Amino acid sequence: MIKQMTPEELKNLILHGNKEIIKEVLENIHPADILDILHEDEDSSKEILEHLPNEVIGDILDEEDDEELILEWLNLFSKYKQKQILDEVSHDVITDIIGSLEDEDEKNAFLELLEDDDKEDVKQLLKYNPETAGGIMTTEYLDIHAKNTVKETLLFLQTTDEEPRHYLYVVDKDNILKGVVSLGDIVTSSFDTPMMDITNQNVKAVYYYQDQEEVAKVFSKYGYILMPVIDEQHHLLGVIDIDDVMDVIEEETTEDMNLLGGVGSEERLDSTLTESFKNRIPWLIVNLFTAIMASSVVSVFEGTIAKVVALATISPIITGMGGNAGTQTLTIVVRGLSLGELDKENARKVLLKEIGLGILNGVIIGALVSLGAWFFAGNPWFGVVAGLAMICNMVIATLAGYFVPVILDRLHVDPALASGVFVTTFTDMFGFFAFLGLATILMTHLI
Amino acid sequence: MIKQMTPEELKNLILHGNKEIIKEVLENIHPADILDILHEDEDSSKEILEHLPNEVIGDILDEEDDEELILEWLNLFSKYKQKQILDEVSHDVITDIIGSLEDEDEKNAFLELLEDDDKEDVKQLLKYNPETAGGIMTTEYLDIHAKNTVKETLLFLQTTDEEPRHYLYVVDKDNILKGVVSLGDIVTSSFDTPMMDITNQNVKAVYYYQDQEEVAKVFSKYGYILMPVIDEQHHLLGVIDIDDVMDVIEEETTEDMNLLGGVGSEERLDSTLTESFKNRIPWLIVNLFTAIMASSVVSVFEGTIAKVVALATISPIITGMGGNAGTQTLTIVVRGLSLGELDKENARKVLLKEIGLGILNGVIIGALVSLGAWFFAGNPWFGVVAGLAMICNMVIATLAGYFVPVILDRLHVDPALASGVFVTTFTDMFGFFAFLGLATILMTHLI
Repeated sequence: MIKQMTPEELKNLILHGNKEIIKEVLENIHPADILDILHEDEDSSKEILEHLPNEVIGDILDEEDDEELILEWLNLFSKYKQKQILDEVSHDVITDIIGSLEDEDEKNAFLELLEDDDKEDVKQLLKYNPETAGGIMTTEYLDIHAKNTVKETLLFLQTTDEEPRHYLYVVDKDNILKGVVSLGDIVTSSFDTPMMDITNQNVKAVYYYQDQEEVAKVFSKYGYILMPVIDEQHHLLGVIDIDDVMDVIEEETTEDMNLLGGVGSEERLDSTLTESFKNRIPWLIVNLFTAIMASSVVSVFEGTIAKVVALATISPIITGMGGNAGTQTLTIVVRGLSLGELDKENARKVLLKEIGLGILNGVIIGALVSLGAWFFAGNPWFGVVAGLAMICNMVIATLAGYFVPVILDRLHVDPALASGVFVTTFTDMFGFFAFLGLATILMTHLI
Repeated sequence: MIKQMTPEELKNLILHGNKEIIKEVLENIHPADILDILHEDEDSSKEILEHLPNEVIGDILDEEDDEELILEWLNLFSKYKQKQILDEVSHDVITDIIGSLEDEDEKNAFLELLEDDDKEDVKQLLKYNPETAGGIMTTEYLDIHAKNTVKETLLFLQTTDEEPRHYLYVVDKDNILKGVVSLGDIVTSSFDTPMMDITNQNVKAVYYYQDQEEVAKVFSKYGYILMPVIDEQHHLLGVIDIDDVMDVIEEETTEDMNLLGGVGSEERLDSTLTESFKNRIPWLIVNLFTAIMASSVVSVFEGTIAKVVALATISPIITGMGGNAGTQTLTIVVRGLSLGELDKENARKVLLKEIGLGILNGVIIGALVSLGAWFFAGNPWFGVVAGLAMICNMVIATLAGYFVPVILDRLHVDPALASGVFVTTFTDMFGFFAFLGLATILMTHLI
């Protein structure tokens, strides 16, 4: 273990160091560390990049997630140098860059920067839906026929350019996936072991058209770090790396959290004002519409409120607490659905538990609200009305928190879309209705 | 690629198949697939487990996350067989099982089931805080001195029991971490390459005391699949696998989502009624307290509402929309903090954007609310009061949505704790105050 360089030291070395020393040091530096320097000091990014060898720039572009930034950096260089850099960038990243270009001519111009065989691979990758296995796979992997021994395989690997990543895939002459061998098995088997003996024929693969979220679940379930992607006839098309799967999980989680928070799924911390505005205003308008629906329930009972103004003070407690209880259920159910933990087998059990919680929490919070209302208004009948309305609204809240996401899921809509909107509209409307309705019926006791 | 067995076929084979065939098939079956059968059919789990060889049972226990279930399964067997099974289970899983036992005597009795060298390793692992690098690492890894050639290393690996997982760690005679070699480099380097030539000395390691969340961030940043854990003197203590890191990320995300949804961080979909109740009722009581605070603002203005009852209809819109806008900001900021994207450099920019959004959305929603109130009450002054209150509350909402989590983070409290409670209490109280306060001032125009 050598002493870690600080970002400042690394930047100084790149900008002012001797070319040979830079090259030697960079061999042991992770591109993510250089990326940090580029992000921190955008003004000198041109100067820093100009001091780096092409392979290192390629590795850096492989790490960067923001395609706009990659294009900006590439455009610092001549077409000739761009070609040399792109030769070092992995195919899935190049595909994402081209996918981010909107103009067809720009896409074609970019493709022209690639070597012929890379161009073919990338053109193929561009055909897949970016949110499927095909869209996140790369075509850089090593396949073998597994017809010889461990020693012969090692001698073959010593001559290849492609660096094997943890596993070798075994294919037949028609490129049909037949098995997988781990490098761990190769290095621990005696030289004369036939490759077939250490090949696992029960290789798990995903189809190119499978949704990336499904793919992520397979990786999590089996603890894989690399998985082959096949077509309907089991031809090996590419591989998916755990690193890309982690990006998918992060992205899908952020989308879920955004939707639950009533924000469009695309917004990120670094979105511009305009992007954020576009992600939020539609939701606020939907919310406004539902808030009007809830307050229209209040307006029906304006006569009741006019007689007993204290009702206006108590009603936000009834609706607010219902909203909280509904959000609790919603949170647990949405997370359970996205982790694939809520299925037909436990659905009934979960629903019964939620109803139980609605009653239990409803009785406790209802009793507290009841006592508070009695004390506040100095009349036990206020306690009766508030307590009953509270219990009913808590039970309704858990039902809404359960059924809204489950029904959306059945309709193949992202259950996180249930968010604040549907559930709290339900609890607001029902809360006002139950409380003000009961108050109207029992009015003689309240005045 | 061979045809995948259905769970039903696999179960039948295990229960009724010939011992030799079972063994051969199981070699190529992933333990997660057998785990599925055990989960689905809990009644026959005893019978299924009894038909499996000890190594397979060990692999299954390695995959299972629920320590209670592991203990249940182990207790199906005699002490003698338990010892044989545990010999196949990895040290970090055994540590988790012992950690889940509450009784000191039970812990010691369990330790007695282990072989002497395993016992020492596990005792050591038990000393680490379960939420730190030491708590999630395992002591099963391969270290080498890297003093010889690739061929000599291969011959050494062929004789070891331990299977290398993607990387070998290079240590000196005092077990101080010096570097790392990937199996990919070993299999592609000529037999006479000195190991030192393919050793990366700039090996990244984490300290045993680092928080698991920090460790997860390092894995994400560098795209690692395995990382060494060291002590203050750089002694190699163990390794952390990406699989365990993915569990950490899933756990931390669920905690964040729970807290944002106003549920205790421990609740899961499969929590019992009692567990769920304990995770929810404290939050509901806190919410009740804040709801009372908000409604106490209303009670101050009861005189105003008595004069103009329509105010009671409009006020939930002002407070509700503020809550929605605050939750939007909160969601983006909390996620940004947990992904480590919000730092000193962009804090100012993010805050200014949020204020801008507050004004922009405030003006739009304020204008709509203003028109609606005018139309509903038939008096333009209602529009003035509602519109102004709405704009103010939207700006306050974004400020609360930004500052509450940021301040909690500075105080080293989980920012997701901000949740519904603080932010919506703020917007409720301020919303009522601004709307009813303005109405009181402009009362002469409203009657």
